Amino acid sequence: MAHNLVASDRVEGTDVCRPNGEKIGVIQRVMIDKLSGKIAYAVLKFGGFMGFAEKHFPVPWASLKYNIQREAYEADVTEEQLRNAPSYVGDQEFDWGDRSGEVAIHKVYRTPHYWE
Amino acid sequence: MAHNLVASDRVEGTDVCRPNGEKIGVIQRVMIDKLSGKIAYAVLKFGGFMGFAEKHFPVPWASLKYNIQREAYEADVTEEQLRNAPSYVGDQEFDWGDRSGEVAIHKVYRTPHYWE
Repeated sequence: MAHNLVASDRVEGTDVCRPNGEKIGVIQRVMIDKLSGKIAYAVLKFGGFMGFAEKHFPVPWASLKYNIQREAYEADVTEEQLRNAPSYVGDQEFDWGDRSGEVAIHKVYRTPHYWE
Repeated sequence: MAHNLVASDRVEGTDVCRPNGEKIGVIQRVMIDKLSGKIAYAVLKFGGFMGFAEKHFPVPWASLKYNIQREAYEADVTEEQLRNAPSYVGDQEFDWGDRSGEVAIHKVYRTPHYWE
C-alpha cells in the first residue's frame, strides 16, 4: 500500500542519479538532526567518477528527490558543484560539529539551512 | 567533536531501555516521513520479553530519549502500554498507509502526531 514513510535501511544503498539518469553515487547513510528529528543529510559515496577517488559527500536531504521509475534519488548537481562540495575520504570522520562547514555545504547545493 | 547529528546506521542496532535500565529491545530501523523529512518512528525489535515472541513495534521517535551513559535510547513505557501497542511479526509488512493505525500508535505512547 502506498504510504508516506520510507525505512532508513531502504534509503541506505539507494542510487543517486543526475536528472539525465547518469548515476553519480550511492547513499551510504543519512544523518539525523537530534534536536528536530529531521534528516539533515544523505551521505553519498561517489567513486571512480570524473577522476574522483572514492569520497563521501554530505548532501542536504532537501536537495534529493526520489524518482519512482528509476528507483533512485535525483540530485540536480553539476560537475562544478561536486568539485567545490565538501567531502571526506573513506573512514575519516566529517567534522559535523562545525556549523560553518554546514553553511558551506548548503551554499554549494543551494538549499535552505535545515536548522532554521 | 560533539555535534547534533547522528548517523542512521548508528541508530540501527542501538538498545532501547526503560528508565530503570531494563533492556526492552533494539532499534531495527527508523521510518522517515517523505513529506517532511522527519523521523516518524523507530521500529523496535522486542523478543523473549514478558512472554512476547519476536515482534516489531513502531514507536514514535518523539517518545525516545538518548541516554549517553547507557549508550541506549530510553522509552518510558509500561508493560500495559506494550501489550496494547500495535506490532507486527518478523517479515510481515506493517500497514503504514493506514493513518488510523498511526493515530492508535501515538495514543498508546502518548506523543503528539508527527504529521501535525
